[in-house]
Parts: sequence; structure tokens; C-alpha cells
Amino acid sequence: MAPTPMNHARRSTIQSLSNPLVKRMRLLREKRHRRAEGLFLAEGLRIATEAREAGVLPRWLFLAEEGAGHPLAKTLIDATLAGGGEVIDTTPAVLSKLSGKDNAQAIVAIYAEPKTALTDIDRGAAPIWLVAERLRDPGNLGTMLRTGDAVGAGGLILLDESTDPYGVEAVRASMGAIFTQALVQARWEEFLPWLRSGPGQLVATWLGDDTQDYQAVRYQAPTFILIGNESQGMPEAYAAAADVRVRMPMMGKADSLNAAVAAAVMAYEVLNQRRS
Amino acid sequence: MAPTPMNHARRSTIQSLSNPLVKRMRLLREKRHRRAEGLFLAEGLRIATEAREAGVLPRWLFLAEEGAGHPLAKTLIDATLAGGGEVIDTTPAVLSKLSGKDNAQAIVAIYAEPKTALTDIDRGAAPIWLVAERLRDPGNLGTMLRTGDAVGAGGLILLDESTDPYGVEAVRASMGAIFTQALVQARWEEFLPWLRSGPGQLVATWLGDDTQDYQAVRYQAPTFILIGNESQGMPEAYAAAADVRVRMPMMGKADSLNAAVAAAVMAYEVLNQRRS
Repeated sequence: MAPTPMNHARRSTIQSLSNPLVKRMRLLREKRHRRAEGLFLAEGLRIATEAREAGVLPRWLFLAEEGAGHPLAKTLIDATLAGGGEVIDTTPAVLSKLSGKDNAQAIVAIYAEPKTALTDIDRGAAPIWLVAERLRDPGNLGTMLRTGDAVGAGGLILLDESTDPYGVEAVRASMGAIFTQALVQARWEEFLPWLRSGPGQLVATWLGDDTQDYQAVRYQAPTFILIGNESQGMPEAYAAAADVRVRMPMMGKADSLNAAVAAAVMAYEVLNQRRS
Repeated sequence: MAPTPMNHARRSTIQSLSNPLVKRMRLLREKRHRRAEGLFLAEGLRIATEAREAGVLPRWLFLAEEGAGHPLAKTLIDATLAGGGEVIDTTPAVLSKLSGKDNAQAIVAIYAEPKTALTDIDRGAAPIWLVAERLRDPGNLGTMLRTGDAVGAGGLILLDESTDPYGVEAVRASMGAIFTQALVQARWEEFLPWLRSGPGQLVATWLGDDTQDYQAVRYQAPTFILIGNESQGMPEAYAAAADVRVRMPMMGKADSLNAAVAAAVMAYEVLNQRRS
């Protein structure tokens, strides 16, 4: 097989906004191009360093001069090259074009999307798993990943038609947790049989009947915390299939919490029970 | 004084996208126009109904035919007219222009911005107050208001240069809590003397030294929960001035939580201590 251009020049310079690789990579801001390429884009030295520390290296690393001078950037450059990726010295204008922001970060990194299936998960490896159903908001999604990392969860299972976890906004809100948390996309019809094929307590945050106060339940590991759609909650059948339905106290006019907040309040309760 | 057009026709119809009132109200999507007018915009029957139930009525209520038929819309129309506001029957195109969204809600309501000062607050009226310092993200701001409502907080005090709480995104994320929670904007130099002029425990969520586990502290009412800027945290001097500095356990790679999540985890701990 003939060597590809990538093998030839693993560190190169791109100045032109119309460079074909730049044009191709900027399309990763759109979901259909991410799907077609199996790639996604993350911005900033901090997130790329979190990824490196989790053993994940970019396929392409774009840096402006300003970003390339940081000691952590040097480490990242070396690791990227050692991992077979390509390092591209470029301009702030190209980085802005890639990220779609006026004040782009000095680093944009392109990663392969991992494809994790339910059967790839070792459920016993973590005491908490977050499960979100038809999650719509990418900020909520990224925030749930970040919270999952904080509470020592194993990952996030996205049920049915949720927003794309590899979009720029979700990746940014995850603050790097997209590289440390397992991420699975599945349908409820696959999830429930998989769940019941092993140990695990399914806990639904539920606004309907037959609920217990979320502090009155003793949670068992692994605890799967199920959060419903932001505006509609979850289907009644999902709540009915859960081992327990819980609610947080609501003292005001509102009847629900933001989805990422509900996930965090629940997850810290489960964690607090374990550590006490 | 001559009667104004508003007094003449309290219910009217606007079809034209270039109507002067439409042009004026759509500018409320920009902060400087909100400041100049002392007005802000909220979308949707649900939020406008929360406002009405909290005793807050719009100055102008724009409805498309589709939205005007709902029983709650009829109640809202009657209350708006009784409160001296103007009801405007309009088209989906005008509502889209006002809200800046393709799929606008069938109701857009314009409210006067309340001007609440620290000295207007009755701190004893609620056991919890949220305090956020240089909050940048309007989604986080709205989510904190929503959480405040849920935990029975009195309101949100925004310190220093925070994002505008009356922007469309913050109002939307609040899910109506912008009408039920007090909202004060102040500088730290005003806040601290005001706080110390009465009862209140200032609790800083802090990533630095001299912290206690957030569950090891017995919180005293009223508890003021201080959350720092999303990327930088709070200045050391603010943490030092707090009565207690607390941290949540962090089991993973990340060293912090999303600001709205941290506020919620803290606020539920304070609430849980009170109700147990």
C-alpha cells in the first residue's frame, strides 16, 4: 500500500482558510458529517489534556503559535505524533473557522468517535451509571458527563433519540469527561433486557404516583439513575419498569428540576450513602 | 395629559412584521435595549402563567391564534387587560420575529424588569439564598433560579459582572422562577457589609485549602450559598470572608462541578438538613 500524505508529513503547516483538510474538518460541526466521518472536534488545551491523560489522542491536532508554546501543548504534540496523529501548525483565523467562534481557543483537536455498545460495558466497574432518555439539550448532556466523572460513575447511557453527545456544545460542557466516561447510545428495548441480564438497580426520577422520597431509599450498586426528557419526563412504562421511583422535595411553584441538576442531586445522594 | 394609544386600544391586532411596536420589542433580545427600556421578554404560556400566578402581569401580551384558544391563555388575557396591559393578536411570523426563533411559542409576553436592591430583601423570609459571582452562562443562571424555587430559596444575588438575568436564554432556563425568586445585582463591596448587618451564614464552595466536606457542616438559616465564576472560581478574598468553605467529594479526574450543579447539590444538602 502506498503511504498516505498523513504518513509523509506528520507535522505540517496550514495557513489557508480554503485548505481541503480545514474545509473537511469544519464540517464536523454538523452531526451528519460527524456520523459520516466517525470523527468529532474538541477545543482547548484543557480538554485535549484530559483526553491525553485518559489515553485518548487526536487524529489531527491544530495549534496556533500562541497555543503551541505551553508545556502541556508540547506534551500533547509529542503524544499525538507518537500515537500516529498529525500535528498542524496554523493560524487563529483557521482555528476560528474550525470552531465556528470568533475567539477560538488556541487548540482544536479531532478525535475518532468511540463506538461503545451496552455489551462493551463492565457494569460492575462502577457503582453508579447515569441513564438519560431523549435528552435534548447538549449542555445538559455534557454536564451529566461531567457530574458522572465527579461522582465516580462509569458512564452515561443515552436512550432513544437523544441529542448528539459528540456535538461541540456537549463536548465543551463535559469539560473533558467525554473522554473519561463511557458513552452508550441504545434503545429502551435493548437497554431493559441488557439491564436485567445482570445485577443493577434501576432508579427512575419520577413526577407521577408511587414514588418515594429520594433520601428514603437505600441504593444498591450498581445504581442506574434514569432521568427523563427535559420537557415531558419519561414514558410511564419506563418508570413502571424501574425498581424504584423517587422524587426530590420541591418546595416552590416548580414541579421539576433541570435534567442535569436532577441527575446530580440523585447521584450525590447515592454517592453519599456509599461513603457514610 | 392626552390618552396614549395604549389606553385607546388595549386589545389590538398586528399583522405586519414592520409594525413599530414589533420592531421595538424585538430589540429586547439585546441587553442594551432591555436596559434602556426597563423591559424583558418571556416566551410561552407556561412561563407567562407562572408569572401570573406569582402576581406578575405583562405590559404587552402577543398571541397567535393557536395560543389564544387555550383556557390558561384566556385567563392570562383577562388578567393582562385587568392589570392595564395590552393584548395583541398577531401571527406566528411576528412571534418568530420577536423571539428570534423559527418555531416560536404561541405566546410572547413583555414584562417590566423589577429593580430589587439588597435592602429590599427580607433575608428572614427564606432559609436559603443563592449567591453567584461573575456568572457567565445564562443557562446556568436560569437553572439556579429554577433550583432556588425548588429548594424554597428566597432568591439569587448576582455579584459583580454577571450575565444579564433578563436575557431570553436565562428567562427560558428559569422555567418561570425568574418571577418567583428575588433577583438582586450587587457588587461584593456592597454585599458583604449588607450580609454582616444581619443574621446569615455565608458558605463558599471552594476548591482551595481550608475546606470541610459539605456534609460535615451544620448549616444555619439563613444560609447564603456562594458559587464562583464558571472557569475561574471565586477570588480568594471572597472565600476567606465566608463563614465556612466547603467542597463536594470529587471521585474522578475533574476538580469541579458545573456551577448550577454545584449550587443545586449544596442547596439540597442544606434543605435535607432542615427537613431531617
